[in-house]
Amino acid sequence: MKRTIITISREYGSGGRLVGERVAEQLGIPFYNHNLIDMVAQETGMAADYISNWEEQVASPRLWGVPAMTGFGGSLFDGYYYSNEDRMFAAQSKIILNIAEEGSAVIVGRCADYLLRDNPDTIRVFVFAEEKQRIERIWKTYGAPSREEAVKYLRAVDKGRAAYVRKYADRDWGDMRNYHLILDSGRFGVDGAAAIIVLAAESRS
Amino acid sequence: MKRTIITISREYGSGGRLVGERVAEQLGIPFYNHNLIDMVAQETGMAADYISNWEEQVASPRLWGVPAMTGFGGSLFDGYYYSNEDRMFAAQSKIILNIAEEGSAVIVGRCADYLLRDNPDTIRVFVFAEEKQRIERIWKTYGAPSREEAVKYLRAVDKGRAAYVRKYADRDWGDMRNYHLILDSGRFGVDGAAAIIVLAAESRS
Repeated sequence: MKRTIITISREYGSGGRLVGERVAEQLGIPFYNHNLIDMVAQETGMAADYISNWEEQVASPRLWGVPAMTGFGGSLFDGYYYSNEDRMFAAQSKIILNIAEEGSAVIVGRCADYLLRDNPDTIRVFVFAEEKQRIERIWKTYGAPSREEAVKYLRAVDKGRAAYVRKYADRDWGDMRNYHLILDSGRFGVDGAAAIIVLAAESRS
Repeated sequence: MKRTIITISREYGSGGRLVGERVAEQLGIPFYNHNLIDMVAQETGMAADYISNWEEQVASPRLWGVPAMTGFGGSLFDGYYYSNEDRMFAAQSKIILNIAEEGSAVIVGRCADYLLRDNPDTIRVFVFAEEKQRIERIWKTYGAPSREEAVKYLRAVDKGRAAYVRKYADRDWGDMRNYHLILDSGRFGVDGAAAIIVLAAESRS
């Protein structure tokens, strides 16, 4: 298989992360999820290092989706304050772009699909599932204290993801046009979904 | 493979019909597209036959998505007139339900995904592609007289399909939640897309 980056965007509780892990195992390629990327950014102190390299890009309207500093001597917003989240995102983004340069990989979340939108070796996948099944997984598998709490988590996490994507990618997270392959993990199971994605990675034009 | 009905909904110019044909070939199962179903309905005179059997169901609010005859002695709409399109749809629907009883099949369009929504042996697929590629196919392959005409056809046919689905299934044609698998035929090619769908049909839980 030629170099392929598979980005997995997923609804909370759909098992998207598990699917991503299986895909990476079957293809024998590295697997990166948001936890891993967060850790690397924090523990290596990369966040601080990259800020100095990233000032201009961080200020880019395209990256943030909002008008910000122009980058031409003197900013529109003197004393503009970047949140820790913004700094983390900038560091992660650099890490993700580096990962894509190194070879094949599976990357879960973190707007990787958006960051790699112009990378021709990318397959953008979205994993979803019926709400009933997601609640079940969040409750029984992820360990939410009760079904009611599972429902709350589901709404909160998905809402957070949509907002994150809107903020950093200025996109509609659930818009199918942002992806190449969208699948219902409940219909195919985690293993079935992984097998389909593996074939898709090998089938690209 | 156990009995599987694969319904293919598709954007005009995405090559969905071709993809469906390849899937049927590879699985060795019958392939039905809307032309075939239309022909059967018209040529066998089934439309007329089925109307008499279908009066009550045709009047069912659930089938049409609009309040209609109650079916209890005397209708709300005396002299209610069914269009030829409605009669044809009723006849096609019966044909599609019969097809699903007979064994595996690939069915393109005709709200088959909606008609078979409670059929557990169904895989609902949506095929789309970037507009640029669709215009190219409609112009170069389907034979539109010019690129400008191809664009017009694309808009008109997709608009018509969305309206048809809204009328008969009371659904949003492009809503990913109505499907199990959604894929970009441009990314994978017609053969690649067909291979993915074949695997999906064999992978269902």
